[in-house]
Amino acid sequence: MLTEFDTSLPSVRQVQNLIKETSQVEVKLSTGDVISGKILWQDLQCMLVQDSSGQKVTIWKQAIAYIKPLG
Amino acid sequence: MLTEFDTSLPSVRQVQNLIKETSQVEVKLSTGDVISGKILWQDLQCMLVQDSSGQKVTIWKQAIAYIKPLG
Amino acid sequence: MLTEFDTSLPSVRQVQNLIKETSQVEVKLSTGDVISGKILWQDLQCMLVQDSSGQKVTIWKQAIAYIKPLG
Amino acid sequence: MLTEFDTSLPSVRQVQNLIKETSQVEVKLSTGDVISGKILWQDLQCMLVQDSSGQKVTIWKQAIAYIKPLG
Amino acid sequence: MLTEFDTSLPSVRQVQNLIKETSQVEVKLSTGDVISGKILWQDLQCMLVQDSSGQKVTIWKQAIAYIKPLG
Amino acid sequence: MLTEFDTSLPSVRQVQNLIKETSQVEVKLSTGDVISGKILWQDLQCMLVQDSSGQKVTIWKQAIAYIKPLG
Repeated sequence: MLTEFDTSLPSVRQVQNLIKETSQVEVKLSTGDVISGKILWQDLQCMLVQDSSGQKVTIWKQAIAYIKPLG
Repeated sequence: MLTEFDTSLPSVRQVQNLIKETSQVEVKLSTGDVISGKILWQDLQCMLVQDSSGQKVTIWKQAIAYIKPLG
Repeated sequence: MLTEFDTSLPSVRQVQNLIKETSQVEVKLSTGDVISGKILWQDLQCMLVQDSSGQKVTIWKQAIAYIKPLG
Repeated sequence: MLTEFDTSLPSVRQVQNLIKETSQVEVKLSTGDVISGKILWQDLQCMLVQDSSGQKVTIWKQAIAYIKPLG
Repeated sequence: MLTEFDTSLPSVRQVQNLIKETSQVEVKLSTGDVISGKILWQDLQCMLVQDSSGQKVTIWKQAIAYIKPLG
Repeated sequence: MLTEFDTSLPSVRQVQNLIKETSQVEVKLSTGDVISGKILWQDLQCMLVQDSSGQKVTIWKQAIAYIKPLG
């Protein structure tokens, strides 16, 4: 569990790369919801994902089960 | 995970903006519940959302999966 | 997430007010259970709610999704 | 959330009283399970409950939704 | 919640005893899964359980609801 | 719960061994999902698993219930 945002962590840098490359991803949440789109930014607490309809969803990291590349 | 309320965090400021602009949002919880309305305030632990009927719901942040703008 | 009981937090004070005013509330838990009644006390870890039949339920705060005023 | 076992906390003392008085309780867990019996001991991490058949169940506190007196 | 592995804690010692005595246990997880077998070791983060077919399951402690003796 | 990545922990070293030996594993998540494949790396927050189709899934450790060897 992260209590501060360590940008040298591989998993934090991986998300930074997904942001830079505007990759399409699928985020599976603890609720069972799947949010698909590109990640616009992340911080210690959240991740902002924009879906194909342009809607922006602020995902709480505490709810993430996994992230995988789309398609 | 936040252990103190850092108001310089992008995700904390984003919620502050939603409060200022009295934006309508949809908050999805780990229980599957969706609370819709405008956010009145937040602190480290909670967020107060007032729905269209005027009822005020104190949401525990630990239960938030995502927040998105309504409509 | 609170790691100490900060009584100056708005959400902690809000619960203190619900206690003082013996307000009827509805507490939704992560299990899906809804506990209705008045809050007798809270500490960092728990909240004691007395329902209409007089039964006292010690709710673990970690399980709270939301609290709202009843009726 | 407790990170150390503070025996002066009301909710910790309440459980200590339930232990002393060998009260019958019902413990509801995040899995939906209900464990009924008397509490034999607690520490920061767990609670040991002995049910009516004499079986001892070590409950992880992280999984507790609520505790209430039985019957 | 434990943030360091305190081997003097009753619940940690109890698991150590289950290991020494190669007791058969049933571990109930937050997913609803029940893992049955004997515990081979534990650390702060995990517990290794070997089931009757010899398969070794590394259980994340964060997912444990309860442990009870089998049969 | 780990708040820093202690590579001397048995459970951390176990995952390191699974990585070195490119073992096939099954990871069960709190959502009920099972991710099967080999682990490519881990850090404090995540674990990257590549499944048989070559797809890479970044699993949040907070969501792991258990890991077991496949087949």
